[in-house]
Amino acid sequence: MECFAVPDLPEIRPGDDLADLIADRVALEDGDVLTVASTVVSKAEGRAANLSAFPASPRAREIASRLEDLTGEEKDPRFAQAVLEESTELLMDAPFLLTESRFGHVSVNAGIDRSNVPDHDLLLLPKHPESSAERIRDGLLERGIEDVAVIVTDTCGRPFRHGQRGVALGWAGMPASRDWRGEHDRDGRELGVTVQSVVDELASAANLVTGEGDDGNPAVVVRNWEFGDHDGSNELFREVEGDFVRQALRQWRFDDA
Amino acid sequence: MECFAVPDLPEIRPGDDLADLIADRVALEDGDVLTVASTVVSKAEGRAANLSAFPASPRAREIASRLEDLTGEEKDPRFAQAVLEESTELLMDAPFLLTESRFGHVSVNAGIDRSNVPDHDLLLLPKHPESSAERIRDGLLERGIEDVAVIVTDTCGRPFRHGQRGVALGWAGMPASRDWRGEHDRDGRELGVTVQSVVDELASAANLVTGEGDDGNPAVVVRNWEFGDHDGSNELFREVEGDFVRQALRQWRFDDA
Repeated sequence: MECFAVPDLPEIRPGDDLADLIADRVALEDGDVLTVASTVVSKAEGRAANLSAFPASPRAREIASRLEDLTGEEKDPRFAQAVLEESTELLMDAPFLLTESRFGHVSVNAGIDRSNVPDHDLLLLPKHPESSAERIRDGLLERGIEDVAVIVTDTCGRPFRHGQRGVALGWAGMPASRDWRGEHDRDGRELGVTVQSVVDELASAANLVTGEGDDGNPAVVVRNWEFGDHDGSNELFREVEGDFVRQALRQWRFDDA
Repeated sequence: MECFAVPDLPEIRPGDDLADLIADRVALEDGDVLTVASTVVSKAEGRAANLSAFPASPRAREIASRLEDLTGEEKDPRFAQAVLEESTELLMDAPFLLTESRFGHVSVNAGIDRSNVPDHDLLLLPKHPESSAERIRDGLLERGIEDVAVIVTDTCGRPFRHGQRGVALGWAGMPASRDWRGEHDRDGRELGVTVQSVVDELASAANLVTGEGDDGNPAVVVRNWEFGDHDGSNELFREVEGDFVRQALRQWRFDDA
């Protein structure tokens, strides 16, 4: 398996055709997986925004004021408003905002980026990253590139472990997970690992060569990796019913005292 | 960046020298990262065990009996005992056991494997995976292989997202994380992503080519990946102070009603 960055992508602007820009710069091959950072997908989709577009509701003002008290840092209530508008559930309101996005992804500040965005205050995540991945894949298909899977990626933190890692937000042309249920080890015992989140692992692999900042390469090709002869499944974001951590968070409130 | 499996490793037995077995099968190069699945590290370190070695305490019997009632499945109290003995904290006792291992890793059943282990009931995680990684790296050094980092890996699930992905348990010869604090985007704004857990991303990348079961390849070489000119840090497992999910779990109890 090889991972390499798509070279020399320009700064992406609203309306840019990512499939075109990428296919012009790299000779994609059948079986490749193309990962594209959500930052550039968002830019192409016009998801840069200004705080002035999010007049703060009383609830956003209350959230920002509590965060300000707890952290001692100035918090713009319009930012809290933007986070609320991007989310279906606020899982933690302090000491930071953890929410479920409209497409099911749990992350801090609804994944809204305050760096990486020229001429605007904010960069929102793509509205529906699965559709974004499909659009890029369709763009490749129109150019005769047939068998390339596309993953829209982001980086985010997680409980229990420090640091951030690459994750998938949306994907097209492949299943999210490889399903080992019913398969066996060398001794014929059923495997302990049953569902492998390959889109997340591909996003993490890509993130190793993406870089950030000045010399960031937002698109990466994974070549010579095979899904193999396994069942696949398409669930990535947990429902609350099976997510006990989320159930615990619903009953918990940060208390500085 | 390339990832490829170390070919033809035999079934690993207690006392086997993994550095030797691997270096005999692949020409490692300066700058390579070698990932080794904890399953084979555990086997080499004699961490296969039988349930009979874990006579159940009253607490283990109580835990197993509650799990049996909740899940309708038979639960061996000696297995609960093994999980408790491998752990420093029981974060969830139902509907499954989530614990912090003695070396700081949060996982289900203390990462104890009930498949992949011939002639025994259980395979415990390595006692101290960081030391395991150092031992393998020392073994390579003794063979004159100088600049190879080693990561002991596992697969595990996570909150909010379905499926399992590769993670690092221990590492040697490289930092756990790449620290982007103080670095800037193309427009000079400080980056939103500050600490990138590269050992976890390398473990995930490796897991894409590892496979499981009959044709599993427990050791993988990552070549032509560079840590680059960044600060590094070595924290991977969160302390409870900054881990709000763990704080929430401490106050929560699964209730079937």
